[in-house]
Amino acid sequence: MARHRAGGDLVRLLLTLLLAATPLLAPVAAEPEAEVAPTPSHVASEEATDAVAAAQQQHLLPRPLVIELPSSSSSLARGVDEGPDDVPADVRCASWRLAAEANNLAPWEAVPAECAAHVRAYLTGAAYRSDLELVARESAAYARAAPLGGDGRDAWIFDVDETLLSNLPYYADHGYGLELFDHLEFDKWVERGEAPAIPSSLKLYKEVLELGFKAILLTGRSEGHRGVTVDNLNKQGFHDWDKLILRTAADRKKTATTYKSEKRKEIEAEGYRILGNSGDQWSDLLGSSMSVRSFKLPNPMYYIP
Amino acid sequence: MARHRAGGDLVRLLLTLLLAATPLLAPVAAEPEAEVAPTPSHVASEEATDAVAAAQQQHLLPRPLVIELPSSSSSLARGVDEGPDDVPADVRCASWRLAAEANNLAPWEAVPAECAAHVRAYLTGAAYRSDLELVARESAAYARAAPLGGDGRDAWIFDVDETLLSNLPYYADHGYGLELFDHLEFDKWVERGEAPAIPSSLKLYKEVLELGFKAILLTGRSEGHRGVTVDNLNKQGFHDWDKLILRTAADRKKTATTYKSEKRKEIEAEGYRILGNSGDQWSDLLGSSMSVRSFKLPNPMYYIP
Repeated sequence: MARHRAGGDLVRLLLTLLLAATPLLAPVAAEPEAEVAPTPSHVASEEATDAVAAAQQQHLLPRPLVIELPSSSSSLARGVDEGPDDVPADVRCASWRLAAEANNLAPWEAVPAECAAHVRAYLTGAAYRSDLELVARESAAYARAAPLGGDGRDAWIFDVDETLLSNLPYYADHGYGLELFDHLEFDKWVERGEAPAIPSSLKLYKEVLELGFKAILLTGRSEGHRGVTVDNLNKQGFHDWDKLILRTAADRKKTATTYKSEKRKEIEAEGYRILGNSGDQWSDLLGSSMSVRSFKLPNPMYYIP
Repeated sequence: MARHRAGGDLVRLLLTLLLAATPLLAPVAAEPEAEVAPTPSHVASEEATDAVAAAQQQHLLPRPLVIELPSSSSSLARGVDEGPDDVPADVRCASWRLAAEANNLAPWEAVPAECAAHVRAYLTGAAYRSDLELVARESAAYARAAPLGGDGRDAWIFDVDETLLSNLPYYADHGYGLELFDHLEFDKWVERGEAPAIPSSLKLYKEVLELGFKAILLTGRSEGHRGVTVDNLNKQGFHDWDKLILRTAADRKKTATTYKSEKRKEIEAEGYRILGNSGDQWSDLLGSSMSVRSFKLPNPMYYIP
């Protein structure tokens, strides 16, 4: 534990120096799909009450593990900052990251400022890759054991950003979830079509196809980016999907959870059995028409409701 | 990252020495409720096929994120051991622990042998406590913001073992999830009634009661342990719950997911609104009649389906 504490102190020192040196880095959400989803802090408490009441009455549909309740970035920072003083920042930030992956956090708008260095070290070190690879191996083990119908209707759904393709080169230039999200800048990045494949996801994608699954790509990207998305995916080795579903104008106001639940329902209505689902957001996985089994890829950079 | 690698090598060396010195430590599941739940490896593939078919047809009830499919401890060890050689064991074991908390793993029977030292260090260091405290703080923040009916029907469900009470003193003497689980020994421990409170859970429990929630304790412990469980809880500061629900003989053959879903349904039928649910197992939280919001406390020692 002494090693952890020393590391935490070093991280805290480096973070202090970093924050002092970069006044432009503001703790605002980096969220690629923010254009179409209301931020949680804009949800009025009346709406939250309605949401709870609706969830209580809604016995016919699966209830999400999370509902949107009023929250603010200060209440999120509290989760990390109000911890006991004797716990090093690095340990507290690992707790924050774990809580995010276990879906224990209220909708959050930004990486806590205290955790900027922790998140950067995680993403650029061995841990993020190791986490991605283990989830891909568990997914493949499940895919191999899953009883396929063999009628061309066994489906595996993949999200795109931070699931098949990585935007890490973009976020590396923009604070890894700490910097103010800039739609114009992010769109420029998307339109370059140069997002690299996540290697473990590409391997899983190929194996799932070889096993006889149909791949359905379900992304929060907009229809307007279809061409560049197809090119980017192809260039990175992703081919032969059954469908690539992007947001239309009609989906713009919906949360990702609602949009993706509706699309899964349509997929089922076409006769597909959704046996697997891979996504880096809980909103890729929860809601209704859920997959038989879901796999949550790690992503400590942004949260999409 | 050099720090991680060196740490991983050290952990691997210590683990090798430990395993060489303790031939009695076998990688078998430590599972307090195993007496009533079939182990996943006993699920025949036909049953798995039925489960998938049932899940596909069961549109009226929420589907769990996980179904039971055939698996073996070797397939679980594979998830950790088949990782790339250039990733240190400590990083791979952190990936395993993260995957468990994010519900990405197939039902697992034991801590992977390679990760025994990692899990021990996690549980006895600052990280486990920090993780517990962050989840408790997020739970309390949600509880404060939740719109209560104020009619005495707002319920918060708590699991007992590894949620309100800690069996860490027992597991410290029994390999932290690596040693062969011994029902007689574990029952002796339970019957001593000396399991300490998890401090952050006690604080949350008291705050939730003060806010006006009714506490409902829903545990996999058997009715025969009611007396000692009440005494243990009281001695540790837990009082004034509305119900303490334990397994009866009729619940013995059920998985925890089924047993707890059924009990939540009964709780709802009595007019309670289940607004919060705290548990260290996904089987405390998933299934049907799910809580509006669920909180997963960390537990890398055992898995209960």
